[in-house]
Amino acid sequence: MDHLNLMKKLHIQNNSKVLLLVMDGLGGLPLAPEGKTALEQAHTPNLDALAARGICAMSTPVGPGITPGSGPAHLGLFGYDPLEYEIGRGVLEALGIGFDLQPNDIAARGNFCSLDENGLITDRRAGRIPTEIGTCLVKKLRAIELPGVETFVEPVKEYRFVLVLRGEGLADGLTETDPQMTGKPPLPVKALRPEAEPTAALVNEWMAEARKILANEHPANGCNLRGLAKDPDLPKMGDIYGWKAGAIATYPMYRGVARLVGMDVLPTGDTIESEVETLGQYWDAYGFFFFHVKKTDSHGEDGNFDGRIDVIEHVDHVLPDILALKPDVILVTGDHSTPAKLKSHSWHELPVLFWADTIRQDGVTSFGERACMQGGLGHIRHVDLLPLAMAYAGRLTKYGA
Amino acid sequence: MDHLNLMKKLHIQNNSKVLLLVMDGLGGLPLAPEGKTALEQAHTPNLDALAARGICAMSTPVGPGITPGSGPAHLGLFGYDPLEYEIGRGVLEALGIGFDLQPNDIAARGNFCSLDENGLITDRRAGRIPTEIGTCLVKKLRAIELPGVETFVEPVKEYRFVLVLRGEGLADGLTETDPQMTGKPPLPVKALRPEAEPTAALVNEWMAEARKILANEHPANGCNLRGLAKDPDLPKMGDIYGWKAGAIATYPMYRGVARLVGMDVLPTGDTIESEVETLGQYWDAYGFFFFHVKKTDSHGEDGNFDGRIDVIEHVDHVLPDILALKPDVILVTGDHSTPAKLKSHSWHELPVLFWADTIRQDGVTSFGERACMQGGLGHIRHVDLLPLAMAYAGRLTKYGA
Repeated sequence: MDHLNLMKKLHIQNNSKVLLLVMDGLGGLPLAPEGKTALEQAHTPNLDALAARGICAMSTPVGPGITPGSGPAHLGLFGYDPLEYEIGRGVLEALGIGFDLQPNDIAARGNFCSLDENGLITDRRAGRIPTEIGTCLVKKLRAIELPGVETFVEPVKEYRFVLVLRGEGLADGLTETDPQMTGKPPLPVKALRPEAEPTAALVNEWMAEARKILANEHPANGCNLRGLAKDPDLPKMGDIYGWKAGAIATYPMYRGVARLVGMDVLPTGDTIESEVETLGQYWDAYGFFFFHVKKTDSHGEDGNFDGRIDVIEHVDHVLPDILALKPDVILVTGDHSTPAKLKSHSWHELPVLFWADTIRQDGVTSFGERACMQGGLGHIRHVDLLPLAMAYAGRLTKYGA
Repeated sequence: MDHLNLMKKLHIQNNSKVLLLVMDGLGGLPLAPEGKTALEQAHTPNLDALAARGICAMSTPVGPGITPGSGPAHLGLFGYDPLEYEIGRGVLEALGIGFDLQPNDIAARGNFCSLDENGLITDRRAGRIPTEIGTCLVKKLRAIELPGVETFVEPVKEYRFVLVLRGEGLADGLTETDPQMTGKPPLPVKALRPEAEPTAALVNEWMAEARKILANEHPANGCNLRGLAKDPDLPKMGDIYGWKAGAIATYPMYRGVARLVGMDVLPTGDTIESEVETLGQYWDAYGFFFFHVKKTDSHGEDGNFDGRIDVIEHVDHVLPDILALKPDVILVTGDHSTPAKLKSHSWHELPVLFWADTIRQDGVTSFGERACMQGGLGHIRHVDLLPLAMAYAGRLTKYGA
């Protein structure tokens, strides 16, 4: 039986509170071979004490060696196999700017590019034009009208933008325009299934109009559309786990992914303190909370090792306020690794810490990568985390007699 | 290739003896956070010495977070993925009372219930009537005759009984009568496939007769049937592993599950000593023995921590007699965890100990949950245990050239 169907069949209701505390990009590497990771070097007395009372593990987001984007990594954390459930790139891009995507919208990630006199691509990123210029071009593209559908064009950053089509009868199953190399023209969008033919025609019409509008721009005299997709209509957390789930996150993309799996996105401010305040405010109303801390990842991407330490220590500092709410199960981990040494997401396993009254303690006494390699749960996968949390919370009934 | 087919393809014959020693519900939790589990606290010099010479692991019966019933947990131990192979509840209930179930019998678990004047269920367990009353009602239900099939009604305990239909052409694929809530009437049984239509009609006829017979009883004036099922016709151990397998167990259900996978059930007494005696008696006749000790589980269900310690120490005490038979491979574990703290089966991993002349020793020097977390085989699944045992016994040939 499929993993999520099993949860759907076995879940039971109780009043327990389960908290998933995610420090984005938590897993790291030492800057030098003999050194410590940011998590190991950070002064984290509260996390260490919790590890000593809890049980630890190392967790793989998608599969061995696979570096996940934020979408798949979070789907894994939420129990959805990221190789089975996918969120289209266009949808993630729209969620990332906080666009209020509707279930039948088609979203695409747009890239401005440079074309030569023959319409062949010379630079797929149009020289990475600054955001102000990209925003200016986006405003011009808003002039394009398509029959029977509403269009939204929104700037993202530099050469990136989002296109959304809204209307009756739009279908996904569309190829991309980006040939993924220079020296070729943008490709026409093709329908991968008959129902998507009209949508493909609309997108090609939009592309033709965009080409006219951008013709005299420089260097961004063309554009490409990638990852044309709809809300993937994922199974919802309430149905799978039988709990009311609330998401607390400061960045739009994480709120968006949480919404796609059926969580309520709770209003919160920009700081970790405001997130903790939100948690307290909504404590009675939900059985499950997803609490997301962004900047461990941002600093990792920037190669800022010390910045990562600061954020981790900040989380450690507020941990007692979180524990004071008396969660029945607390699960501390990250979505993926973002070692400052690599300045990017990576495939490395993540340290995981579970505490509940029903855990079996191991001998781990600090929360860090090397300590968790000796954790009592061994090496697990992200999709195993919520089933374990459900069990620790007494929310799963027996399988079979 | 499917797991069991691989074994079927690769197994070879030799004279080795493999012993699977199962202490039911072996995995535990400390009563207090800083304490020891029953297995850790028990004085087990013989098991510890074997662990020091062997290799250990932690094993998951079904999947992370999943608490198995005894049926699925044992199927896992025997190498059958419990999510793929299922034993119906009616079949397990019949096996549990030692009923001699035939391959084409349909077995159901029956529950007496209370109905109001409109035939709506007011108590799904009829006030948990004592076993004597249940037995008395069962005898009345034996009067029901169905055309062309034989019926058996047997008491189990309190409000529970077993109904078995025997005859030509009976088919499974039937819904249950129990609406799983009060305020609703028992539901008619429906066929989930056309071949089961005549069987559904027979069961509904039985239900109508039962209702008449019970009409004036109090509080058990109705009943429900659940888990209507046949022997699942599982692949047999002899075909899969190529060995003759013998089961030694004091409780009917475990003898029954062993029989379903093709083991010979060996006659034995009620004590662990008599089980050891049986083992010695049949030692030359079998390649594989399943040796089941029940009471670690029973005491766990009763919350009797010290009782669990006693049983574990009892097993440790007889271990030298078992080892004196010179098994080539010995595998000591449990089917699932039954922590006295939780008074129920649980999802926690089980300690596993392998000894054979061909194992690779790890550094574990005692047999316990926390020691086995550091075991040399890491964290494995129940279905991996017998393939490993086969390999240690030299009973698997090379895969591919």
